[in-house]
Amino acid sequence: MEKKLYTPGILQYIPFFYVIWSDDLVSASEINVVENSINNDVSLDQIEKRTLLSWLIKDKPPTDHTFKQWKHTISSSQVLLIESETYPLATFSQKVVCHYYDTCPFNMSLKDIEINLGIQPNHYNHLFDVKVVEEISSDFYDATKIDAILKGQNAAVVDDFRTALNHPIFKWEVHRDKEKFRARVLDQVVYLAEQGYGAMAFSEAYGGTGDMEGYATIFENMMYVDGSLTIKFGVQFGLFGGSIQKLGTKKHHDAYLQQTGKAELLGCFAMTETGHGSNVRGIKTTATYDKITDSIIIHTPGKNDNKEYIGNALHSTMASVFAQLIVNGKNEGVHAILVPIRGENHNLLPGVRIEDNGYKLGLNGVDNGKIWFHQVSVPRENLLNKYGNITPEGTYESEIKNPNKRFFTMLGTLVGGRICVARAGLGGAKMALTIAIKHALKRRQFNDSVKIQEDLLMDYPSHQLRLTPLVASAYIYHVTLDKMMEIYCDESQPDKRKVETQVAGLKSIITWYANSAIQECREACGGKGYLLENRIADLKGDVDIFTTFEGDNNVLLQLAAKGVLSDFKAEFNSAGFTTVLKLLSQQLSDKLATVNPMYTNKTDKEHLLNPKFHQHAFNHRTRRLTYTVAMRIRDYIKKGIPSYQAFLKVQTHLLALGKAYSTELAYDTFHTFTETIADEKNKELFQKLGSLYALSELRKDASWYLEQGYIGSTKSKAIRQRQERLCTELRPHLNSLVDGFGIPDHCISAPIAN
Amino acid sequence: MEKKLYTPGILQYIPFFYVIWSDDLVSASEINVVENSINNDVSLDQIEKRTLLSWLIKDKPPTDHTFKQWKHTISSSQVLLIESETYPLATFSQKVVCHYYDTCPFNMSLKDIEINLGIQPNHYNHLFDVKVVEEISSDFYDATKIDAILKGQNAAVVDDFRTALNHPIFKWEVHRDKEKFRARVLDQVVYLAEQGYGAMAFSEAYGGTGDMEGYATIFENMMYVDGSLTIKFGVQFGLFGGSIQKLGTKKHHDAYLQQTGKAELLGCFAMTETGHGSNVRGIKTTATYDKITDSIIIHTPGKNDNKEYIGNALHSTMASVFAQLIVNGKNEGVHAILVPIRGENHNLLPGVRIEDNGYKLGLNGVDNGKIWFHQVSVPRENLLNKYGNITPEGTYESEIKNPNKRFFTMLGTLVGGRICVARAGLGGAKMALTIAIKHALKRRQFNDSVKIQEDLLMDYPSHQLRLTPLVASAYIYHVTLDKMMEIYCDESQPDKRKVETQVAGLKSIITWYANSAIQECREACGGKGYLLENRIADLKGDVDIFTTFEGDNNVLLQLAAKGVLSDFKAEFNSAGFTTVLKLLSQQLSDKLATVNPMYTNKTDKEHLLNPKFHQHAFNHRTRRLTYTVAMRIRDYIKKGIPSYQAFLKVQTHLLALGKAYSTELAYDTFHTFTETIADEKNKELFQKLGSLYALSELRKDASWYLEQGYIGSTKSKAIRQRQERLCTELRPHLNSLVDGFGIPDHCISAPIAN
Repeated sequence: MEKKLYTPGILQYIPFFYVIWSDDLVSASEINVVENSINNDVSLDQIEKRTLLSWLIKDKPPTDHTFKQWKHTISSSQVLLIESETYPLATFSQKVVCHYYDTCPFNMSLKDIEINLGIQPNHYNHLFDVKVVEEISSDFYDATKIDAILKGQNAAVVDDFRTALNHPIFKWEVHRDKEKFRARVLDQVVYLAEQGYGAMAFSEAYGGTGDMEGYATIFENMMYVDGSLTIKFGVQFGLFGGSIQKLGTKKHHDAYLQQTGKAELLGCFAMTETGHGSNVRGIKTTATYDKITDSIIIHTPGKNDNKEYIGNALHSTMASVFAQLIVNGKNEGVHAILVPIRGENHNLLPGVRIEDNGYKLGLNGVDNGKIWFHQVSVPRENLLNKYGNITPEGTYESEIKNPNKRFFTMLGTLVGGRICVARAGLGGAKMALTIAIKHALKRRQFNDSVKIQEDLLMDYPSHQLRLTPLVASAYIYHVTLDKMMEIYCDESQPDKRKVETQVAGLKSIITWYANSAIQECREACGGKGYLLENRIADLKGDVDIFTTFEGDNNVLLQLAAKGVLSDFKAEFNSAGFTTVLKLLSQQLSDKLATVNPMYTNKTDKEHLLNPKFHQHAFNHRTRRLTYTVAMRIRDYIKKGIPSYQAFLKVQTHLLALGKAYSTELAYDTFHTFTETIADEKNKELFQKLGSLYALSELRKDASWYLEQGYIGSTKSKAIRQRQERLCTELRPHLNSLVDGFGIPDHCISAPIAN
Repeated sequence: MEKKLYTPGILQYIPFFYVIWSDDLVSASEINVVENSINNDVSLDQIEKRTLLSWLIKDKPPTDHTFKQWKHTISSSQVLLIESETYPLATFSQKVVCHYYDTCPFNMSLKDIEINLGIQPNHYNHLFDVKVVEEISSDFYDATKIDAILKGQNAAVVDDFRTALNHPIFKWEVHRDKEKFRARVLDQVVYLAEQGYGAMAFSEAYGGTGDMEGYATIFENMMYVDGSLTIKFGVQFGLFGGSIQKLGTKKHHDAYLQQTGKAELLGCFAMTETGHGSNVRGIKTTATYDKITDSIIIHTPGKNDNKEYIGNALHSTMASVFAQLIVNGKNEGVHAILVPIRGENHNLLPGVRIEDNGYKLGLNGVDNGKIWFHQVSVPRENLLNKYGNITPEGTYESEIKNPNKRFFTMLGTLVGGRICVARAGLGGAKMALTIAIKHALKRRQFNDSVKIQEDLLMDYPSHQLRLTPLVASAYIYHVTLDKMMEIYCDESQPDKRKVETQVAGLKSIITWYANSAIQECREACGGKGYLLENRIADLKGDVDIFTTFEGDNNVLLQLAAKGVLSDFKAEFNSAGFTTVLKLLSQQLSDKLATVNPMYTNKTDKEHLLNPKFHQHAFNHRTRRLTYTVAMRIRDYIKKGIPSYQAFLKVQTHLLALGKAYSTELAYDTFHTFTETIADEKNKELFQKLGSLYALSELRKDASWYLEQGYIGSTKSKAIRQRQERLCTELRPHLNSLVDGFGIPDHCISAPIAN
């Protein structure tokens, strides 16, 4: 038995002190926690308390000699640290005392310290020179419960759908030949239509359940099978079906909706042209009303005016064609017209030419093509006439007089598609994260010369830091997109302009997030991530284009920013724009001045994890960017520079505003949601994810916050440390967090994840 | 004729003043330039000078009314702005005067202002409400000359090689079936070998020219044909051939090198194992010397100990196998042994099992496979015995006694491969940038309601900002990698440890750069970038894995950082580590204190573009990170934490140091190079690219510099503005800059680039 250096009272604290001083992570407020516990610990006498407190002075750390003595005392005890115990460190301390003394009761004060400091075994297990009974994951959280929180009201639909996916037709395979791949994906789409999923968003009269929210959710889950399936499904039912449903009237619904939902009528959505991608209003295809034959003539005028990149183009028999509608020589703007493109035996109809777009980086199971029309005549009734009609007398009429407003109203009905694309991107990210994290919880690499076993990849701090914030973001974006779809579907709010702007920005930040998450996962899995069999490669190829289609991200962000600017204008409208700016300028500087001393230097844990701080920081950025961009634009316009040019000059500023606004929106939406979680344990977990998201986003834009003087150097460093710390704290729960995404086992075919 | 508001003297300055005040870009020092010119302008009388100078007070800008009068005066003249004129703005001003007055001489003072302010037509052409004769690109710089600067000493080799690539065998095609693709790539490799390129790096005795630098250059150029060709070529000649050349001795050279160079002997490089990617020293394959048969037995012990991801595995007849060499029961560490794996008729030899790795995200023309050995016997002579030998008596001998040092010496000979991978990544980035920029110089999108023509994509500020810094980086990295190869090949410097460390870091930052550049190009080309025919998609898939192979980037960066740390230790070795830290701490704080007032607030153009500022900023970061990480490690070690754990705890810090060091190295190398450019005009262009690189890199890490107090808020904003400004200044030359990469026309098959 070794010489007893310490009394039992002191000895029980030594493992805690060892952990506290071995890192620089413990802040003043945390030292406070320990001090209070020591003061209230009835097992200690005054001398012991004094000794212990003398080791707690932040500016006067214990000597290296003392530290080594602690270490020696601990390791000589040869006690095993058991990660799975409820209070591992307190229990460990108890056992160390048991080794040296006969009595060693469990000390509740130590338990309190362990809880209050929130330190996890993986913070300190490597510090002890004793063998650690390691656990790869904690089962503290129940993944099923997490999944239930995410599914929310859609639980029944999602569960049924996940079960439906457990069918041989959805088995993942390598497809290299586009024809075979497309045929397979078509079979899958038809199968899902037969199960009723195609018509889901349509009303009951047309075979559906009118459940657009459920539709968005199953759309995301489809990504677990394959990206091509998801996109082809979206084109057939969401875009083609959606255009009939939302731009057409009862005669169109009756004629086509049921067949479309069953995939008996296959259709495509012909909007984009080679010469006009983002600028839809500038498309060149014409739809000219011919009074004599009472028909509409669809025509592609120039060589770059063909429809481009049209999904389902090779399988469809009908197209919803967007064209400049010309009635009596007058251009009434862009409208959609249903144009049959193939007849029986799948032959092209006269005047229609279709070419395959060929191989792509991904989504090769989707048949994208180019379409030319040469004076193709369709009946007047084929005009999808909800927002603009040609009367039997051959005159144009619309309830929306302003052509601009009419155009944006029509486009607005398609916003659901943007939410769905963002969700599909999110699904891809979840899938890649699940694979990468499960791999990192198995794969070992390098080792200490002492240890026999190499370390798990997931135990590397850099690996935690690269993957954990991405997992947190997936939770934030899931909740946000769910909420957006709920608002979009809320019939009591007919004006969708706000949600359109919001969705434009969110689609951008979320699809970019999805791409970088998948890329990070690819690299985190090394060469294994590069093999198709491990699925990440396909996800990368498929999700890539999500940043471009349904609106290019850069264009959409500017749209979002312009939305913020016009809200800003409207907000103070009565006061006039200049007064507004003065008011806001005042308000901003006041706010900043008031919060300055408190906010710029505050680095304690409570503050950094406080949603009020996060919300204030996000809101401040949006307001500040709005104000400064508005000022710049006003200055240009005052100088007589045309507004188009003025907006061009502030383009990068607008992009920053669009991002800032969307991030704030996502955080706020998530925060509001966490408040509604009934179960306290999971609520705390979600709050922690929210904090990690907030701190990671603040880190990304730290230079802006520092430039503005909103945060000081010390705080910026504290945010970084707190972010790393959160990643470490979440490490034991990563497996539950990815299981919480609810990806069915039968979809996780990647060998490295099994 | 309109009312003459201004005298000719004043009138000639109005377009300049209009440009100056329409933006906030003009700094105090630039106003100075204008003031001096006005003071020295003999065409002006005192009253005119006074009026003009009164419009130049930074804090008292002209009224909006004045500004509008200027605008009206200019637009009423209906003068066309001709971008291609030598001094467009001075000439424009002259013509405006000509419109209102009879005499209008060209004013040299205006010309001087135009030159000194360095403003380009695309800064201001949109400001004038008159039609502008636009030019897509300027021919101010000659792309051939730029290309010549980049080619340097390798010009002859590169030119020949580019011509050689103009052969039908290199025509780009879509390949989806891996067998056909691999066969095609093999044909290409054999063809190049027949032309003598395979043996290039070998000495003349074995059919080469001993030109490793030329080899690296053609390697990069091969990327313009195809990534799979590049990598398979690299495996056959660089890795397999290189292992014989550098780890073998004359008997191996005589027996195999010539055949290898001609691709008559195909071989693979079997190092990585399924269970051991990054940790090569931990590989499990054994090579046990059997004294009785005088042979070496190669064996795969466990199920995850097979060789993995071995390129050329399906075409090779021989493998250079890395294994633990065991002689007389003692493990002598990792050595390479030549192992025949296939016989005549390409049948596998007994004991060898090979499996195809299957489809990958990219590089599907490379036949990667897994290899297992079951007690495969090869003669003792097959040990590549340059650094470790088994004598005929059956004992192990090596001139390098320390097994660690021996291992790293062997590995060090393969550093050339890392330079080549970085160059291949760079080639991919150049190709993608060329395509994206040529596309953006053709594609138009959106427009002003006034303008008939839509704007070129390349004229959007956000588009300039996303692509131009990437072009600048390509130049910096090209020069850096060329220099590294020169140092690596310099036989007068036998100790390659420094260059190994440097290459480890550079390979990481450059392959990451390449990936993000290609991704940016993909998105910048929208949906078109997603089509295989436009090449960017393939580049993306191929280059992706470069971040992982020849050393995972995160592992390599830590290697680089550790190299910096040991240099740092060695630097002050005699003084002892603690003294060192004290010294350096002193030095850093002194330096910062001295430069503080001057550096943290300086925002003028001369300073921001000054290489001394860039070098100081980069060096300061490296030194500071070195010092702080060394301090942290020391503290952990003083507390008795094992060094392996201590390094793990500072992992993210090490990664930051590795990046900082590599960026500094690249900038310094490039800066030194620019000094040697004889032609002043191109030298200035290169210096501008260097500035753009430096400012862009500083921007990326602005939060760190702000946190450290190295730059203040105002300076941080000024850097951002200056970066955007440089992009605008380079806009007219982008076409020349990408043509300067010298990618042969016959390789640019992408339809969107033509």
